[in-house]
Amino acid sequence: MAKMTEHTFKQFNIELDEIRSGVLRMGGLVEAQVTNALAGLRTGDLALLDEVIAGDKRVNLMQLEIDDECNHIVAKHQLAAVDLRLVMTVIKSVSDLERIGDEAKKIAKAARRLHSSETSFAPQIDLGASAQIATGMLHAALDSFARAESDDTASIKRQDAEVDNSFKATMRQLITYMMEDPRTITSCLELLFIAKAIERVGDHAMNIAEYVVFLVQGEDVRYGKSQASVAGKD
Amino acid sequence: MAKMTEHTFKQFNIELDEIRSGVLRMGGLVEAQVTNALAGLRTGDLALLDEVIAGDKRVNLMQLEIDDECNHIVAKHQLAAVDLRLVMTVIKSVSDLERIGDEAKKIAKAARRLHSSETSFAPQIDLGASAQIATGMLHAALDSFARAESDDTASIKRQDAEVDNSFKATMRQLITYMMEDPRTITSCLELLFIAKAIERVGDHAMNIAEYVVFLVQGEDVRYGKSQASVAGKD
Repeated sequence: MAKMTEHTFKQFNIELDEIRSGVLRMGGLVEAQVTNALAGLRTGDLALLDEVIAGDKRVNLMQLEIDDECNHIVAKHQLAAVDLRLVMTVIKSVSDLERIGDEAKKIAKAARRLHSSETSFAPQIDLGASAQIATGMLHAALDSFARAESDDTASIKRQDAEVDNSFKATMRQLITYMMEDPRTITSCLELLFIAKAIERVGDHAMNIAEYVVFLVQGEDVRYGKSQASVAGKD
Repeated sequence: MAKMTEHTFKQFNIELDEIRSGVLRMGGLVEAQVTNALAGLRTGDLALLDEVIAGDKRVNLMQLEIDDECNHIVAKHQLAAVDLRLVMTVIKSVSDLERIGDEAKKIAKAARRLHSSETSFAPQIDLGASAQIATGMLHAALDSFARAESDDTASIKRQDAEVDNSFKATMRQLITYMMEDPRTITSCLELLFIAKAIERVGDHAMNIAEYVVFLVQGEDVRYGKSQASVAGKD
């Protein structure tokens, strides 16, 4: 860093701010995608669902752009450890955001099929509670990225377990429906895929929360291991 | 690079070789995990399935180690574009390999439940063909990484479409089974999750193949866009 001129230093800080705000813009878009997919599922608003499906292209492009900016930063500057951690956190976070975008698209597609089919055998399954926890996790993860403060990961892990349990409960309910009335099988499978997608939104949100811990504390908390404890090679 | 002493340069090349061979070792392990999970599903070998489930921890640790080595390389050296592309390719590839490892674990867990349940209502569904294509895609992607030659992506895209179609066909078959005999529903859902996991192995393998194109040609081919065509910001 010592070798930087004042001009380069300013430029460098602008670039770091850009990738940081890029994650938040992409995060905002992805949150909207998930919320709209779930709203469309609830209300049967097909136009909204189509918007979500079309909107995924924009999510994908944002990832490419932010990745590209990260590559430029690393290529142009010799990064200090803390800045390098930011770049790595950004690259990993946008990859998870992109996958959350994919899940939103899957939810929208399944909701579309459910609402446009003539069948009236849609089972009464409430996915609202788990959807609320999963989107709450995503919001909290982005918020902690924005503040560059790592929240208590115990809390997000508890929420992740809640979403997982809620998925298992939904699956049991759906199996009961299918057994009682085999005509509901196709709709039940759509709902199962939607429940699975909600669960995965929670998983990806937890990944992002863990990257923020790495960013803030310089410690890799994935798989419940700190870097120190995995230093020994196999 | 010009500023490097001969010693640093040698050291640097050793480090690049290490992350390159790390990907191949991790890839080999992940391939074995998938193959063993599928073998256990076929034969009902519960000990082998347990090995796969336990082995996922090693896959996760390998990702952490390789990520860590990448961070060190980027922190220590001012990388030329081609070397930076290698590091980025490695970071992304091990993330997909780790997720393939997760899919192998899911297959093993579902196979365990299928084979240890008392139910004898397991439907006759052949997942062998799609499993063979998906594992073939993974092998080809790792092979093209090893040779640092990007294969024809049209071929891997065709295979990915085959796996996707095969998943859809399996789903239709399973729906028929479930409708004809609701007692098969639980086993059918396990098989559905396994079929989905196989499909995702193919997706991740395709991602890796695309990173290799980026590595070799310096062009981002994800989402069917070259970097040139996404240069315009939103």
